[in-house]
Amino acid sequence: MDFNNLKLNKNGLIPVVTQDIDSNEVLMVAYMNKEAFDKTLETKKVHYYSRSRQCLWLKGETSGHYQTLKHMALDCDEDTLLVKVQQEGVACHTGAYSCFYKEIDLETKNMVEMGDRTKPKSESVLSIFEEVYNII
Amino acid sequence: MDFNNLKLNKNGLIPVVTQDIDSNEVLMVAYMNKEAFDKTLETKKVHYYSRSRQCLWLKGETSGHYQTLKHMALDCDEDTLLVKVQQEGVACHTGAYSCFYKEIDLETKNMVEMGDRTKPKSESVLSIFEEVYNII
Repeated sequence: MDFNNLKLNKNGLIPVVTQDIDSNEVLMVAYMNKEAFDKTLETKKVHYYSRSRQCLWLKGETSGHYQTLKHMALDCDEDTLLVKVQQEGVACHTGAYSCFYKEIDLETKNMVEMGDRTKPKSESVLSIFEEVYNII
Repeated sequence: MDFNNLKLNKNGLIPVVTQDIDSNEVLMVAYMNKEAFDKTLETKKVHYYSRSRQCLWLKGETSGHYQTLKHMALDCDEDTLLVKVQQEGVACHTGAYSCFYKEIDLETKNMVEMGDRTKPKSESVLSIFEEVYNII
């Protein structure tokens, strides 16, 4: 498949939702250009296009927090990508496990930062099975 | 919290990743403007801004496939929202459970549409527990 056949935004980019293959939590949202998309499929390490630095960005290149590609899908109108990854370390540059650690309280509508941001909130299916196995 | 303090795109919109609270699968990606954001928090039914129709869009208004808001979070740089929802019926207008049913085979790089798109791929934690319980 050719990246250029996808529905790209005005800058030739496509948004990418990145999900942890184990916990299924959403880790981050970033963008890919053709080079990042092709490199990701070629190397199985997720590459993005950095809009701030305007260059190819191999996730983990400086932090060691690489994302190994395990699954990739397009949505119905082919304007958004979803990747599932094996995350080394944490996804967020702040040290948080996921970039989405600023919760909005649905009643007060205030923003509340999560206490321990370094771990997934949900447990992986595997660890639940392990727990059940241990109880039995 | 005020929507206008978020990092919006040039059209005054913010991308929203919508996830199923039960299965944790990503259902869709859409956009909110201030009206959609406020209405979502006020009614607990997810509203988006339809970029094609250029108007407020109460998800489920015509299909009955409402999304009840259960969780909302912002990412580290406050330019993307994540909502977790209780999905009535299916999320995609094609009848698929999730909009992300066009998988990309990581070896051949071809697009392969999922067989049964109407159900989540992963099982909810609850149903896994139920299965384990039934086996025991």
